[in-house]
Amino acid sequence: MSSSRVTVLGLGPMGRALAGAFLGAGVRTTVWNRTPGREGDLAERGAVLAASAEEAVAASPLTVICLVDYDATDAVLRQPAVTDALKGRTVVNLSADVPERARDTGRWAAEHGVGYLDGAIMTPTPTIGTPAGVFLHSGPEPLYGEHRAVLDALGGTHTHLGEDIGRAAAYDVALLDIFWTSMTGYVHALALARAEGITARELAPFAQGIGAILPPLFQEWAEDVDGGSYSGEGSRLTSALSTLVHVVHAAEAHGVDASVMRAAEALARRAVDRGHGADGFTRVTQVMERG
Amino acid sequence: MSSSRVTVLGLGPMGRALAGAFLGAGVRTTVWNRTPGREGDLAERGAVLAASAEEAVAASPLTVICLVDYDATDAVLRQPAVTDALKGRTVVNLSADVPERARDTGRWAAEHGVGYLDGAIMTPTPTIGTPAGVFLHSGPEPLYGEHRAVLDALGGTHTHLGEDIGRAAAYDVALLDIFWTSMTGYVHALALARAEGITARELAPFAQGIGAILPPLFQEWAEDVDGGSYSGEGSRLTSALSTLVHVVHAAEAHGVDASVMRAAEALARRAVDRGHGADGFTRVTQVMERG
Repeated sequence: MSSSRVTVLGLGPMGRALAGAFLGAGVRTTVWNRTPGREGDLAERGAVLAASAEEAVAASPLTVICLVDYDATDAVLRQPAVTDALKGRTVVNLSADVPERARDTGRWAAEHGVGYLDGAIMTPTPTIGTPAGVFLHSGPEPLYGEHRAVLDALGGTHTHLGEDIGRAAAYDVALLDIFWTSMTGYVHALALARAEGITARELAPFAQGIGAILPPLFQEWAEDVDGGSYSGEGSRLTSALSTLVHVVHAAEAHGVDASVMRAAEALARRAVDRGHGADGFTRVTQVMERG
Repeated sequence: MSSSRVTVLGLGPMGRALAGAFLGAGVRTTVWNRTPGREGDLAERGAVLAASAEEAVAASPLTVICLVDYDATDAVLRQPAVTDALKGRTVVNLSADVPERARDTGRWAAEHGVGYLDGAIMTPTPTIGTPAGVFLHSGPEPLYGEHRAVLDALGGTHTHLGEDIGRAAAYDVALLDIFWTSMTGYVHALALARAEGITARELAPFAQGIGAILPPLFQEWAEDVDGGSYSGEGSRLTSALSTLVHVVHAAEAHGVDASVMRAAEALARRAVDRGHGADGFTRVTQVMERG
């Protein structure tokens, strides 16, 4: 790995973690951040601090960019001097945004002779450089193959999802949907519990028990949805709806906002009203898709 | 256990599982259901089928009731003949409803000389009678102690949460809040993935990865909320909000309903607007509590 070179643009907590992992794996790493002084101990660890984004991308065949969203990556990459410097080189964009922005960036890269891979990081900062990291990639397979060894220096599991440049972002947004909806449910449960005199620490062990039953159900429900059966075995929509109503009622009885659960309740009710009460909760996917 | 007797009222899937577990543990079990013919193979396995609810509750010192909600349990228990037959006996109500209904039933039981324990079953039907079952109980400790041996015949873990009769229901509704909000996020992610040409089976393994990171975060966030720090370390509210916006945008770009995530986004935005953008997402609990 000692002959490999990589540039990291963006030195937020995740960008710093990426650069640190590259350095730890012996990759010669050049870094740049719009606001200077964010490099922490990266220079001491051997990182080259570039004076400009164009200087940074010119230093390596591969640039990894990790910014808050694609407005931010556009603002860096689409500056003429940077675009020029990138010609014939490759960018892996690990910033998070919606699939259409990844596809748009793919078109821009193709127009300017820039190799482009899109990616997503599915695990938090402390997992970077460890076996626990999960990285998704999409874009041209040969380009991915060419840079895979350097990307592997980040540790963890790397999955190439296909040639559609938007695919990593599509997985990312769907998985973040699960994560953030779940966490919204959790903080709501904490508010509801507190209104009932239950501390968060008291609830947490039982919440962890709920968390543990989700993964096998994710698999079971996936088969149900792909098979189109929307089967209600063990989880009828009418019974789920009755539970959603209880949650709304219990929260609002204490003046706790229940807008998220009210939205879920409205979707479940719509499915029941359309005659799907004996189906499973998975039937709600159709209501979401068709209005 | 051969001298123990129990009555089970309600023979939906969960009621049948409870009666089956009692029979399997050698408890003499009397069953009753409003609609006859729901007993499955329970009679062959030794259950006594009672002709009426009053006959059923008179057959055992302990009655376990498991119906769809407390409107249904009231309709059975508050019939004068049934209330009379329960005098001096104990009811464990494992039906699900909001805490105030459990407390109301506790008051009714006290007025009529009926011993009353409230409970909740946190795991699905197939776990009943196995070590995987999770049961929560609340109400008078001596009464719980008296009937604990029979309840243990259901297998699994039984936790007595305290004397407040509504406490089991409060935990139940908070935990169901987490479960159903998460599952709503999951079916939404499946709809969004499908719109992007990703099957549920393709997404599921990664969704399971997300599920696996929730339990440790539940513990971490609980400490954050109880400590009142609402710390943004590793998960700033502004960054979460940006993600919620991406999810809404990606869904609506495909005509997929995003009402649940829009409600979550509005709450996060309110917290940011109040100057809490550098805090953690846990700060949203306060917005939920205070409007």
